[in-house]
Amino acid sequence: MRVLILGGDGYLGWPTAMRFSGKGHEVAVVDNFARRRWVEEMGGDSLTPIVSLDERIEAWREVSGKRITSYVGDLAEDTLAADVVIDFQPDTIIHYGEQPSAPWSMRSVDHAVATQQNNVVGSLKLLWAMRDHAPNAHLIKLGTMGEYGTPNIDIEEGFIEITHNGRTDVLPFPKMPGSLYHLSKVHDSHNIHFACRVWGLRATDLNQGVVYGIETPEAKLDERLLTRFDYDEAFGTALNRFCVQAVVGRPLTVYGVGGQTRGFLNIVDTLQCVELTASNPAGAGEYRVFNQFTETFTVAELAEKVKQAGAEVGITVTIDNLRNPRFELEEHYYNPVHTKLPSLGLEPTLLSENLIESTLGVIQRYRERVIFDVIAPSTQWRPAPPVGQPAS
Amino acid sequence: MRVLILGGDGYLGWPTAMRFSGKGHEVAVVDNFARRRWVEEMGGDSLTPIVSLDERIEAWREVSGKRITSYVGDLAEDTLAADVVIDFQPDTIIHYGEQPSAPWSMRSVDHAVATQQNNVVGSLKLLWAMRDHAPNAHLIKLGTMGEYGTPNIDIEEGFIEITHNGRTDVLPFPKMPGSLYHLSKVHDSHNIHFACRVWGLRATDLNQGVVYGIETPEAKLDERLLTRFDYDEAFGTALNRFCVQAVVGRPLTVYGVGGQTRGFLNIVDTLQCVELTASNPAGAGEYRVFNQFTETFTVAELAEKVKQAGAEVGITVTIDNLRNPRFELEEHYYNPVHTKLPSLGLEPTLLSENLIESTLGVIQRYRERVIFDVIAPSTQWRPAPPVGQPAS
Repeated sequence: MRVLILGGDGYLGWPTAMRFSGKGHEVAVVDNFARRRWVEEMGGDSLTPIVSLDERIEAWREVSGKRITSYVGDLAEDTLAADVVIDFQPDTIIHYGEQPSAPWSMRSVDHAVATQQNNVVGSLKLLWAMRDHAPNAHLIKLGTMGEYGTPNIDIEEGFIEITHNGRTDVLPFPKMPGSLYHLSKVHDSHNIHFACRVWGLRATDLNQGVVYGIETPEAKLDERLLTRFDYDEAFGTALNRFCVQAVVGRPLTVYGVGGQTRGFLNIVDTLQCVELTASNPAGAGEYRVFNQFTETFTVAELAEKVKQAGAEVGITVTIDNLRNPRFELEEHYYNPVHTKLPSLGLEPTLLSENLIESTLGVIQRYRERVIFDVIAPSTQWRPAPPVGQPAS
Repeated sequence: MRVLILGGDGYLGWPTAMRFSGKGHEVAVVDNFARRRWVEEMGGDSLTPIVSLDERIEAWREVSGKRITSYVGDLAEDTLAADVVIDFQPDTIIHYGEQPSAPWSMRSVDHAVATQQNNVVGSLKLLWAMRDHAPNAHLIKLGTMGEYGTPNIDIEEGFIEITHNGRTDVLPFPKMPGSLYHLSKVHDSHNIHFACRVWGLRATDLNQGVVYGIETPEAKLDERLLTRFDYDEAFGTALNRFCVQAVVGRPLTVYGVGGQTRGFLNIVDTLQCVELTASNPAGAGEYRVFNQFTETFTVAELAEKVKQAGAEVGITVTIDNLRNPRFELEEHYYNPVHTKLPSLGLEPTLLSENLIESTLGVIQRYRERVIFDVIAPSTQWRPAPPVGQPAS
């Protein structure tokens, strides 16, 4: 299989590239290194000391004997998407190549516009390139569980059967996302669905939960193969950030009461899900949505788990409930269906104290690299209240 | 009331500007003349000989004694949206400032990207400008009935109550639009809903049907006040195009069997709907959707009505059923609710033969200006089949 990985230098993209290459597939990656720049802009840096893409590819060749092709550029600019599709002729395209941070998208109008433009235009150009140059390729697009928001009904996988005034149809599940980043993913989903309906493309939209963890089997072979690991307010996800806070002896920053429930999965399960999806492609004209997570937790439960795991390894962990910078319900119903990936064979790697302890161990190795200033939230979802008025 | 009209040089924007100005409101328009350029790009031109925006504004001042302010520029570029909102301090913003053609959006990847970028980024910058500089202004956004597509259930006005596995919620009505232009409007709707939920903005999304007609009362005062009238494949809407074809003795071009059912309204009712909406603004944080049309017809019924009206004035009209260039159902269920605007006082101007006859009369005045080549559809929704294979 010829596998093209968009965003192949990122947190999930690089481990995915090694996985498919290691299994004997022909792999190419596309990246413009935007993630590296965005994290720098926040004043942060990957906890793990990552090397350049060229060095990673060379290290992988030394360790595995396999070659990964790379294309450097921006999918949203000029004709890069078409050029790469024509040149590489992929069978499978795995698309992580987007701005992935909700707080970053809410920092200013320029960040909001850059997020929607980068994500929506990049994906739209890719769809058109597939239409013209690879109509039978299978697009595996990383979406997010955040597209759904937190409705008061069970969340289905992409589509819902609605009976209304005596008639019935199966329609896209309604979306109520919580940030301009999450909205960009909703826009993508609508565009991809259209491309499948009208152009007969094949696509699977993976509505992924919050990913945690650092190591994948391939990365253990050589330190140069480690993926990036972010813990700043924008690019660090909840559990990863909590683990860093625990190791450096800072309070875990829970937003509000911490009753927000979300789906979570280990980075090794992201790879498993993407592999299963690639091995079971969508049909011609089919747009599938898989809800990709293995467990749900409240943010408060996650913090408590880190506290307990810390105690096991002799770290005293405290928890701070900050005023919530986001606009979200802190107590809500949440029951998303997630049966499609298990039905393809997903065997979940559930969150255990052991797993947190091993993550704490890796973080411990790099604790001197932690930049403290970038962890606390500075981006507010709503404008500051006028001077003299209390915050609502 | 201070009324800012985005796209104020366009088919609906200019008549709207005169209407609000004539009623004594302070009016400003924003336009970058993109519509004029897009129609020229198609090889077309307005049937009516429109003058420049400055000349229109001067003619209106001569006729009415009222001044309209103008800002020239692109909402999606730089800080124009914020600059205008700061400078004019609107109470009401009526937003027609988008690329409005489905066929134009499907011409090429560049047209698709330009449509989504222009529409989504322009509106997003506007929302952010309102957040920071006019949080109490009422946004009246022109959406389209095409956002819904043609589901097999009744179409509600923006939201639908869904009961699922014993629980109930009211959620955005699922969208299945039929072009990349219609998708840009779906993306806007999601972004605006978010801005109301999170920033407390006020917005009414007018999901408009297909508009027909030329004259509004204000335009009858002076030929220089006539609005543009397009009949090309991209910017001419069905009934307007049919009327031009009838007058110049060409067959009416019905796509496929013509069973496609759509909502329609007269241009004078667009003005009435926008006025009623402006007089009854949304509350703080409220995102309302009104389905804005007065009647539904199949395309075949429309063609038949033009044929009958033609016979009344001595024109023999023929009908051609072309291979459908679009991807759409030609026979489908269609029952959209449209009660909110009538409940505010909308008195529909229904399509009658008289009305078609008067439109035919205006077209007759300008028939020497008709450019024949631009009427037949050249833009295909799907790529051409490989040579030697039949079209599906």
